[in-house]
Amino acid sequence: MKILLIISDGLGDRPFSGLNGKTSLEAANKPNLNTLAKEGMIGLIDPIAPGVIPGSDTSHLNYLGYDPFKYYTGRGPFEAMGTGLTLRGGDVAFRANFATVDDDGVVTDRRAGRIREGTSELAKPLNMRIEDVEILFKEGTEHRAALVLRGEGITTNVSDNDPHSENLKPKEIVATAEDGKKTARILNEFYKRSLKILKEQPVNLKRKSEGLKEANAILFRGGGSVPRLPSFNEKYSIKGGYVAAVALVSGICRLVGLKDFTPSGVTGSTDTNVKAKFESAIKALNEVDFVLVNVKGTDIAGHDGSGVEKRDFIEKIDAAMSETVMKVKENTVICFTGDHSTPASVKEHTSDPVPILLRYPGCRKDGVGKFDEISAKDGYLRLRGSDLMNVLLSSANLAEKYGA
Amino acid sequence: MKILLIISDGLGDRPFSGLNGKTSLEAANKPNLNTLAKEGMIGLIDPIAPGVIPGSDTSHLNYLGYDPFKYYTGRGPFEAMGTGLTLRGGDVAFRANFATVDDDGVVTDRRAGRIREGTSELAKPLNMRIEDVEILFKEGTEHRAALVLRGEGITTNVSDNDPHSENLKPKEIVATAEDGKKTARILNEFYKRSLKILKEQPVNLKRKSEGLKEANAILFRGGGSVPRLPSFNEKYSIKGGYVAAVALVSGICRLVGLKDFTPSGVTGSTDTNVKAKFESAIKALNEVDFVLVNVKGTDIAGHDGSGVEKRDFIEKIDAAMSETVMKVKENTVICFTGDHSTPASVKEHTSDPVPILLRYPGCRKDGVGKFDEISAKDGYLRLRGSDLMNVLLSSANLAEKYGA
Repeated sequence: MKILLIISDGLGDRPFSGLNGKTSLEAANKPNLNTLAKEGMIGLIDPIAPGVIPGSDTSHLNYLGYDPFKYYTGRGPFEAMGTGLTLRGGDVAFRANFATVDDDGVVTDRRAGRIREGTSELAKPLNMRIEDVEILFKEGTEHRAALVLRGEGITTNVSDNDPHSENLKPKEIVATAEDGKKTARILNEFYKRSLKILKEQPVNLKRKSEGLKEANAILFRGGGSVPRLPSFNEKYSIKGGYVAAVALVSGICRLVGLKDFTPSGVTGSTDTNVKAKFESAIKALNEVDFVLVNVKGTDIAGHDGSGVEKRDFIEKIDAAMSETVMKVKENTVICFTGDHSTPASVKEHTSDPVPILLRYPGCRKDGVGKFDEISAKDGYLRLRGSDLMNVLLSSANLAEKYGA
Repeated sequence: MKILLIISDGLGDRPFSGLNGKTSLEAANKPNLNTLAKEGMIGLIDPIAPGVIPGSDTSHLNYLGYDPFKYYTGRGPFEAMGTGLTLRGGDVAFRANFATVDDDGVVTDRRAGRIREGTSELAKPLNMRIEDVEILFKEGTEHRAALVLRGEGITTNVSDNDPHSENLKPKEIVATAEDGKKTARILNEFYKRSLKILKEQPVNLKRKSEGLKEANAILFRGGGSVPRLPSFNEKYSIKGGYVAAVALVSGICRLVGLKDFTPSGVTGSTDTNVKAKFESAIKALNEVDFVLVNVKGTDIAGHDGSGVEKRDFIEKIDAAMSETVMKVKENTVICFTGDHSTPASVKEHTSDPVPILLRYPGCRKDGVGKFDEISAKDGYLRLRGSDLMNVLLSSANLAEKYGA
């Protein structure tokens, strides 16, 4: 049997005053989800463990069977994936800022006036090769960016250049262990070259002429190694794919070797074409055994504090299931859940357990017959994220017996 | 937000014949607890793991986030804390008995006639220094006591002197490993000195004149190192305090660096002033972020086999909440649970999971609306003790997101 795992990002919620104290999922009109619940079982999942507030990165890793306490190597590599860079195990990634320095090299603004425009143009010429090391540089949101070093002998044992306050010069990078010397040398050279390159960029010349702070220096910190993960296909002896518009999630999916089936034109927001995502996922199931679909709109609406928008997006997901997901349910394990809770009342991730729905042909039916955070306590499932792949594989008859 | 963790010691119960088959918690009139349940969620917690019978020591350690399988170093150190001694990581503590020896040094009673009076006077002169080692000696209940060695090079690699039966002489202490030699030498010297000291004590002269067995020797066994625990405040980057009259619990709280807010005059029994404990805890929340309150009466009543007294004590707790706990609920995470079950029908600790109640502003409401062992199965929470701190911290918005 095939497996379709739909992750509605930030799905879990708390009572929301604008919805008469209901959660967005309780308030939503969701006939397809309720039908699947009637035909299967629901419950709660702690993406990491009770009380642990998941990030989308740690949660997706755990759901895919990669223990984040083993493989999550910090924000550097995962934020770099979030910029859309395709990383490889062993790459060393830093969190970076565009900053402003004066003629003496003293930092006058650590965020280059919170620059919003032109960072893509500024980032491109910072991709270069120094010695035998490939440097990848990619802009993120506002002044944020990712700096990645790829090559033999690159390690995380180096200091940062970020002075962490203004009116100071960026610090010289030094090795914090013997094996950090090469990395420190490369980073110091990168900083030197980047000053020259950035100064001449049209974006900065224009900013200067307009009296705006130039983005003429790069500060970086928090270097982390991209983990070397066993590939999903080898780990489970099946073929896997994904549909995800948001870079952090797609970066993780690529890192574990899932094949990209994301259709063009979809976004990581509430305006995305959910139906196109589902259509692409179902088509992909002809080629692979497992597809993860991430829809981000629930998280966006939660962060925006709009329980109403979140409810509407859940209704949009449910409607998009009619001609897609509901048509394949007789030969597919369907699992619908979230990677964490982003209650509209909190506007941030919380550790509240997330409702989960599981339906496959011939499965037990728990008789709850509806799908929301509160009903979920009466459902059949009470899982942790690390259980999920095992549950999905065995539901699909793709797991081996452990023992005789 | 602040955190108030109320631990009603031995709270969990089983059906009690004297309460028409209800548990003490079911039978109790507890409007405040039921109100908090209506406004939040209830459930069950296994203090250690299903089927594991917790001690108050292992359970409190686990609740505070210190894995007892890592940090619980045996009854020696924890019973020593139970005598009220303030211990430090690295101290080596033995379980000790006052015993009776005859003129030839042969043990004639391992428990000194189960002596009850005068042990405090007998214990005091046994506090001494031998070489550079500080010896702490403190009486416990009846013939029981604690012997603690504090100093450089003290280890647990020594034999006991307790012959474990009468008509034998106490054994000479020997090192069971090279690094136990100093400890063995100190203990043998302590035993020799203690014989001389105890013989001359007025308590023993009086016992001799009355034909009672003299408490004229100390037997010790089961040496264990006091664990070196990371401090609570550093571990969680918050400030913590406690209110607890029972020595074992307060000893653990002190060991992890919680600040003592126990008001004077409270006891570890059913006659304690629960309201004074709550008042002190709530005042403490002005100074610290987290307060653990232990009320012991439920456990005492359970051990006494009195379900009625246990029910009455629960009602006393509930009543004490009216003008205290219930007044701070809008800016405090309130958690009410027990450290284990002490069913009145069993008179001992059992592994039954313990009901837990969690209420904080904006939390999910599970709709159960009352609080007892049986309703708890319909509640939202199903935790293990090791989850508790994570759940409390994230409920109070004091936890960091794990990931991005």
